[in-house]
Amino acid sequence: MVEELVALASLAPSVGYSQPCRFVRVDDPERRASVIESYQRANRAALASYQGADADLYSRLKLAGLRESPVHLAVFCDRTTSTGKGLGRQTMPQTLQYSVVMAICILWIAARARGVGVGWVSILEPEMVTRALEVPESWELIGYLCVGYPLSDDDKPALMRVGWEKCDPRATTLLVR
Amino acid sequence: MVEELVALASLAPSVGYSQPCRFVRVDDPERRASVIESYQRANRAALASYQGADADLYSRLKLAGLRESPVHLAVFCDRTTSTGKGLGRQTMPQTLQYSVVMAICILWIAARARGVGVGWVSILEPEMVTRALEVPESWELIGYLCVGYPLSDDDKPALMRVGWEKCDPRATTLLVR
Repeated sequence: MVEELVALASLAPSVGYSQPCRFVRVDDPERRASVIESYQRANRAALASYQGADADLYSRLKLAGLRESPVHLAVFCDRTTSTGKGLGRQTMPQTLQYSVVMAICILWIAARARGVGVGWVSILEPEMVTRALEVPESWELIGYLCVGYPLSDDDKPALMRVGWEKCDPRATTLLVR
Repeated sequence: MVEELVALASLAPSVGYSQPCRFVRVDDPERRASVIESYQRANRAALASYQGADADLYSRLKLAGLRESPVHLAVFCDRTTSTGKGLGRQTMPQTLQYSVVMAICILWIAARARGVGVGWVSILEPEMVTRALEVPESWELIGYLCVGYPLSDDDKPALMRVGWEKCDPRATTLLVR
């Protein structure tokens, strides 16, 4: 199923049909341990930036499933690809990275449609993870995904459920200019 | 329907539930004219970067539908939002912009499910577009979308159909580490 999800994700639109997405399944226990250590360091630093009730709540949040999820997927952007011949990214070069995010989004939806859960872990040191996985230097880490069947499902975002944040009405407002 | 699509897009996952997406429908003819001028300038410069057969093919590509599409949607990232309290973006701050890309992806899929076409125009000068739309300076342009019912549908990416680029097998390969 992971292969099927990757095949579907590769159908995502990409700027100038550059297809810069590179998928890496992380199976090796030592490499996984390095990623978990990176998460723990980044998360300790993040916790230290909060005070009072925020710090208390933050320390109790579940922010990754690196130990629980059977599948780890690291998703990279091949910054040096010549595929697509640079079309569409001369004035907005970051659309190459955005193309990888589109692929992650398609993978995520395809996973959910099959009852599989995806968690995007961004509390990581990208250089450390890239080094631990021994991928080409030109590959930029875009997302690190924990993939597996969830113990429970809920339509409400977890951070809303626990009271970390509410709905921001600005995100649903359509301005007219 | 545009309002419905924006409401669906706002359900996209966002880093730390930051919901940084800001949608602007561009209706004003003068503002649209400014965007079209920006596209023409950026596209002339892009064309000048190609030689020979590539230049010839590039000049015949349809790379935007700015005149044809009834709806223009500019999608911004509110870089200064405090929603989500910075959670998840201390080591990978670009996940704020990536959250907006996720919302664009959801909007795109929801549009296609309704028979509506979406074209992401990246051959634009982002500062010019931002200025023309008079949005807050802290808003960063992520995508400019041409939205409307397409004259025809095709499962094949247009750039593959016309021979600009082929399928890149690296985008479907799942490496194991």
